[in-house]
Amino acid sequence: MSFLLYFLYICAMEKFQVHILGCGSALPTRHHLPASQVVSLRGKLFMMDCGEGAQLQCRRSHLKFANLNHIFLSHLHGDHCFGLIGLISTFGLQNRTSDLHIYGPVGLQEALQPQLDFFCTGIPYRVVMHEVSTKHSEVIFEDRSVSVTTIPLKHRVPCCGYLFREVQSLPHIRRDMIDFLKIPHYAINSIKEGAGWTTEDGKFFPHERLVTPAKRARSYAYLSDTTYLPQNAELVKGVDLLFHESTFLDRDKSFAKQTFHSTTKQAAEFAKMADVGRLMLGHYSSRYDDDNLFLEEAKEIFPNTILANEGLVVEV
Amino acid sequence: MSFLLYFLYICAMEKFQVHILGCGSALPTRHHLPASQVVSLRGKLFMMDCGEGAQLQCRRSHLKFANLNHIFLSHLHGDHCFGLIGLISTFGLQNRTSDLHIYGPVGLQEALQPQLDFFCTGIPYRVVMHEVSTKHSEVIFEDRSVSVTTIPLKHRVPCCGYLFREVQSLPHIRRDMIDFLKIPHYAINSIKEGAGWTTEDGKFFPHERLVTPAKRARSYAYLSDTTYLPQNAELVKGVDLLFHESTFLDRDKSFAKQTFHSTTKQAAEFAKMADVGRLMLGHYSSRYDDDNLFLEEAKEIFPNTILANEGLVVEV
Repeated sequence: MSFLLYFLYICAMEKFQVHILGCGSALPTRHHLPASQVVSLRGKLFMMDCGEGAQLQCRRSHLKFANLNHIFLSHLHGDHCFGLIGLISTFGLQNRTSDLHIYGPVGLQEALQPQLDFFCTGIPYRVVMHEVSTKHSEVIFEDRSVSVTTIPLKHRVPCCGYLFREVQSLPHIRRDMIDFLKIPHYAINSIKEGAGWTTEDGKFFPHERLVTPAKRARSYAYLSDTTYLPQNAELVKGVDLLFHESTFLDRDKSFAKQTFHSTTKQAAEFAKMADVGRLMLGHYSSRYDDDNLFLEEAKEIFPNTILANEGLVVEV
Repeated sequence: MSFLLYFLYICAMEKFQVHILGCGSALPTRHHLPASQVVSLRGKLFMMDCGEGAQLQCRRSHLKFANLNHIFLSHLHGDHCFGLIGLISTFGLQNRTSDLHIYGPVGLQEALQPQLDFFCTGIPYRVVMHEVSTKHSEVIFEDRSVSVTTIPLKHRVPCCGYLFREVQSLPHIRRDMIDFLKIPHYAINSIKEGAGWTTEDGKFFPHERLVTPAKRARSYAYLSDTTYLPQNAELVKGVDLLFHESTFLDRDKSFAKQTFHSTTKQAAEFAKMADVGRLMLGHYSSRYDDDNLFLEEAKEIFPNTILANEGLVVEV
């Protein structure tokens, strides 16, 4: 039984998933909720955007609040952040003690602090706000599992996307070789990190014979909301999964231009240019009744496209 | 066809309904959303409380935003008002032009204004805030259809309930008598308002013979959140429908006391004392999995009890 639990734990720790909590745009509809996603990576949760209802969607998705310590806001339009104060408040009621870090463009403090002052005095944890630059790409968070890099976007207010890159795991030790060569325990870490091994009789075994390679590190880019910016393709080149907003269909590209959004065609062209593994569409305008219109338009240019939908869990 | 439409219109204008958008308490669950209700009366909508997700629930309930001009907040805890900024913002995107009136305890302006200043500059309509007293009962709104009266409540912050009293309609003119007595058109209104009629030959017909009585005016009281306040029973005496919060079961009455909430037993005792038509329970604590426990406890004291639930529409 304990082996089974350990196995399940290892599987969970290997996972890199994106949970879609909401993928509508400014006007909520009966089909779609405002923007929010959660990246689940090696047991930790990272939220991107926090539209109204995000905490309820978290519960529906059985995501554990306690594992969420970092929230990344693309910009300070209501459909991307009106769920934040409710989530912060709920954490307070649950007697959370660990810091909650919130990253977002300039204005974050001005928008959030008055709400915290009125509604959240005396909560038993700290809300730490980080205002990030939306002008240039920079690493804003790193731990042993992941790095998060901003991607400058162009919208009606300061806005950026976020690129999640899994940290490359060390290779796996070949237990058979360790046993056969009687390599002592203290040498294991240096072998994992690239060293070879010389036996007592002077025979050298190179690193590559002592390990099997780890899985390739995975990556996910979240780009919403933005006008079409082909120059960003280089920044997210080759990511496994790209979320690119596609608020409008190509037939409404004048609206897209006017409101600093992208069309589905542009999202697909961007995905092709950036040579990504898969493209996920979302941030659908409420004017369309049938999401499949987005899918059809994108697939003509980039076949490996999927549609975001509330409750969807995508393995990166 | 036009007669059918007219008939449907008349039916709609006769309706007095309460739509439950959310009936959970502070911690949202998978079963219940935060507090919000809409009274629909003679084609107008009045919202009580506006927890996170209220605007989405409005859409699901097919309630027309354009008919909502008045929102009444019981108090300024997040689970009763975090949906407000999203709703206001959506109204802006829909190019609403008519004033939106928001009533709530002292602090309303302080809580809402910074959010309006940051997120809603340039909306094409006015948000008019009315801070009401929670110390004494007073009429805060009146029109041709309804009056709204505050009911002082006792919670951890200033808090009040709201009593909706339909304005008594004038009696219906008896067309047969009008025709028979050849009463001229100009006299109709005064007869509706209580006058009789004297024919040319001096015969007097009292008011009661010229009309049939209108339906009795209906009433609904919304009391949430509050500690048990039996002295309020007199203020809502005989209402057709009473919503009384029942956050806890009787077995947890110490928690109720500590947090300034009521138990189901107290809600039922209050309903009995106030001699109301029906009692509706809600604001259920997230600690209970089965809402029927509330119903069973209440029915022992006040049999005509129902459970609030998301999506429920109650005819008053």
